[in-house]
Amino acid sequence: MNEIEKLAAAAKKASVVLSASGTMLRNKAVAAIADEIEKNSAEIIAANELDIAAARENGISESLIDRLSLSEKRIYAIAEAVRDVCRLEDPIGKLDGGGVRPNGLQIRKVRVPLGVVGMIYEARPNVTADAAVLCLKSGNACVLRGGKEAIRSNIAIAKTMRAAISSVGLPEDCITLVEDTSRQTATDMMKANGLIDVLIPRGGAGLIRSVVQNATVPVIETGTGNCHIYVDATADIDMAVRIAVNAKCSRPSVCNAAESFLIHKDAAEAFLKAVKSPLDRYQVEIRGCSRTREILGDEIRKATEEDYATEFLDYKVSVLIVDSIEEAMEHIAEYGTKHSECIVTESYKNAMLFTERVDAAAVYVNASTRFTDGGEFGLGAEIGISTQKLHARGPMGLEHLTTVKYIVTGEGQTR
Amino acid sequence: MNEIEKLAAAAKKASVVLSASGTMLRNKAVAAIADEIEKNSAEIIAANELDIAAARENGISESLIDRLSLSEKRIYAIAEAVRDVCRLEDPIGKLDGGGVRPNGLQIRKVRVPLGVVGMIYEARPNVTADAAVLCLKSGNACVLRGGKEAIRSNIAIAKTMRAAISSVGLPEDCITLVEDTSRQTATDMMKANGLIDVLIPRGGAGLIRSVVQNATVPVIETGTGNCHIYVDATADIDMAVRIAVNAKCSRPSVCNAAESFLIHKDAAEAFLKAVKSPLDRYQVEIRGCSRTREILGDEIRKATEEDYATEFLDYKVSVLIVDSIEEAMEHIAEYGTKHSECIVTESYKNAMLFTERVDAAAVYVNASTRFTDGGEFGLGAEIGISTQKLHARGPMGLEHLTTVKYIVTGEGQTR
Repeated sequence: MNEIEKLAAAAKKASVVLSASGTMLRNKAVAAIADEIEKNSAEIIAANELDIAAARENGISESLIDRLSLSEKRIYAIAEAVRDVCRLEDPIGKLDGGGVRPNGLQIRKVRVPLGVVGMIYEARPNVTADAAVLCLKSGNACVLRGGKEAIRSNIAIAKTMRAAISSVGLPEDCITLVEDTSRQTATDMMKANGLIDVLIPRGGAGLIRSVVQNATVPVIETGTGNCHIYVDATADIDMAVRIAVNAKCSRPSVCNAAESFLIHKDAAEAFLKAVKSPLDRYQVEIRGCSRTREILGDEIRKATEEDYATEFLDYKVSVLIVDSIEEAMEHIAEYGTKHSECIVTESYKNAMLFTERVDAAAVYVNASTRFTDGGEFGLGAEIGISTQKLHARGPMGLEHLTTVKYIVTGEGQTR
Repeated sequence: MNEIEKLAAAAKKASVVLSASGTMLRNKAVAAIADEIEKNSAEIIAANELDIAAARENGISESLIDRLSLSEKRIYAIAEAVRDVCRLEDPIGKLDGGGVRPNGLQIRKVRVPLGVVGMIYEARPNVTADAAVLCLKSGNACVLRGGKEAIRSNIAIAKTMRAAISSVGLPEDCITLVEDTSRQTATDMMKANGLIDVLIPRGGAGLIRSVVQNATVPVIETGTGNCHIYVDATADIDMAVRIAVNAKCSRPSVCNAAESFLIHKDAAEAFLKAVKSPLDRYQVEIRGCSRTREILGDEIRKATEEDYATEFLDYKVSVLIVDSIEEAMEHIAEYGTKHSECIVTESYKNAMLFTERVDAAAVYVNASTRFTDGGEFGLGAEIGISTQKLHARGPMGLEHLTTVKYIVTGEGQTR
C-alpha cells in the first residue's frame, strides 16, 4: 500500500462509522469545527504566515498571495461559512422513491453518502475547511490534497478540524489531509479505486485536464467556463450592455464570468459603441473580429482562433460579429465549455431556440452568466460547478455528494 | 480523426437533431424499428447463420452459440421488447425542480438527453436493438460496438434500424455501429472525449475492468455481482432455503445471482442439511469452509480465498459459517462488489443493522437477490445495472440516460 492508499483506507474505515451517524451528531461536529477554527485562529495565522513568506521567496504573484492569505477576518468568515453548512438540510436518509411491487416486495430508494470523497485543489486554504465540512455534513469522509503553497495553513486547519470532530466522538480520519504535495500523491489519488469513491478536482484547466485524463476512479469534472454573451438582433441594447459588463467585469477570475461576446450584425454598431466606455473603465482589453475593428477602430487587437478558445479569467474579452443566431450557436457549440451561455433578446422565438439548442449546464435569457452558483441557485452551498453531464451538472450542493441505495424488504419472495 | 472519432462526430451531429425532436417523432421511430426488424427477419437470420457457422469453426462453446443465435421467435421477441420501450414515459423535458429566486430570476431544471452514448458489449445481438432503442427513446444518439462473434448479425440489425429511423425523418447516424471489432476501436471509444458523453460497458468482468482502467470519457460501471445470502441465527430455515436456492439456481449466469452463502453458526447445521438436496438437484458444486465440511462431510471441496472473491456465474457456490452478523458484514465489505446483498432473518434489529451498514446498490431482507432488475423494480426497461455510486446506482432505466440543463430567464438581472 502506498501512502495515499493508507490514508484513503483509514478514511474509508472512518466513513463507515460516519455514514451510520445521525444528523444531530454530524451537525454537532460541524459546529465544533467552526468554534475550534475561531479558537485556533492565532495558530492558523502563524502557519499561514510561513506559507506567505515561502511564497514571497519563491516569487509567487501578489494576486496568488492574496488568495493564499488568512487574516482574523478571513478566518471568521470561514467559521461563519461552516456554520451556514450546519443550518442546511441533511440530504442523508431522504426517500427518493419506492413503493410496493405487485409481488409484495417493498422497495425504498434512500439517499446515502458516497463514502470517501477525494478533492485535489490549488492555493486557497479556505477550500480545506469548505470541502471538509460539506463532505462531513453529507456523511462522507474526505481525502484532501491542496496546493503546496498553502500546505502549512492546510495542516493547521486540518489538525484543528480533526480535533474538533474527535471531541464530539467521530473518528478523526473522517477528515484526512495529504501532507505530501508531490505530483505522485495526486496521481495515486487518481488511481485509488475501491478506496476513493469520487474525485473532484478544483482549480485551473491544466489540473482538471490532468485528472480527467489520468484518473481511473470516478471523477466529477468541474469548472472551466468559456462563457458567451450573445447579443441578438432584437436585443435591448441598454440591457445587453449591463449584462455584458456585469458578466465580464464583476469578477473576471471565476468560471461563470463571460469570456466572449457574440453580436448579431444588426445590433453590432449600437452595442459596441455603448459597451466600449464601461469596458474601458474596467480597462478590459477587447480582441475583435475584423468587423468589430471596423466599428471600434484598428487600435482593437485582432482576435485569433486561440482567443475564442481561451478562458481568459482576466480583464480581456473576445468579440465576434455574426450574421445569425444559428452562427452564434454554432460558435458556442465549437468553442464553449458547456458551462453557462446567455442570449440577450426581445424575440420570443429566438429565446426558445437558444435555450433548446445550446448544450450547457446553464442557459440564460436576459440575465448575467454570473448567477451560475450554488448560493444563487438556492442550493445553499457549493462544492464546485460540474461541467460534465453524468451525476451532476451545474452547481453541486450537498445532494450531489450522495448516492442511493435500494432497500428491499420481503417475506420470502423468490423470482 | 480516427474511424471512431468520425463515427462519433457523425453521431454527435445527429444527436443535436434528435435532442430537438419531440416525443411523438421518437416514438414513431421506435415503432418503425420494431416493424422493420420483423419485416427483415429473414435477412437478419441469414446474417446470424453466418455468425454461427464462423463461431462453430472457431470452436466457440455451445452455451455462447445459444446466446448468439437468433430465430424467428427470438426476433419477434426483440421487436416486442422494442414496442415495450415505445410505451414507456418519455424522460425528456421533465421538470426536475426550479422556481423563482428572490431577484426574480426564473430557474427551471429540465431533463435533457446526454448526447452520445457509447456501448461496448459482447456476444448477444439483441443488445444491439435494446441499447439503440433505449438511447433513441431518451433522445440520445448511440455508438454501438458489439462482439466480433455477432458482427454480421449486428450489421444486419443496425442497417434495419437505420433505415427505419431514416424513413420517419430522423438522421440515420442517430444509430451508429462500429463494424471494426478490433481492440483498437474499443480503445478509441474510451478516449473519444468531447464526442462520446458516456460509455457503458456490458459484459464480463474483464471487459468492464479494461474500460474502467483505460477510459478518459465518463464511464458507468455495470454488472459484476459477487452477491451474498446471509442466513442469520434467527432465520426461518425454510424461507432461507427457498431464497438461497432461487438466488443461486434460477439463472446462475446473471449478475444478480448469489455466489456465496454466509451462515450464522447457530443456523448452520439446520440450513446446510436442508439446502443440500435442492442444491444437489441443480448439481451445484459447494465449496465450503472447514466448519461447513464438518457438517456436510469431506466430499465438499474446501473453499479458497479466491473462491470467496469469485463471481462464478455458474452452478457453484462458496459457503462460510460465521460467528456473528458483524463477521458476515465484514466479509461482504471485503469480498462483495456492492451489487445485491441479502439477509434472511426474523430479527428486527439485525434487519435494520444489515440494511443500514451494508454498502450495496440493493440490500434485501428476506427476498432473493434476483429481483435487482429494471423490470422487477418497475423502471420498465434496463440499459444495465450500475455498481458504481456516481450518476446511477442499481438498475438503470431511461431516466439514467438523461442529464439536466438549467434554463434561467430574466429581465436584465446582474450580480
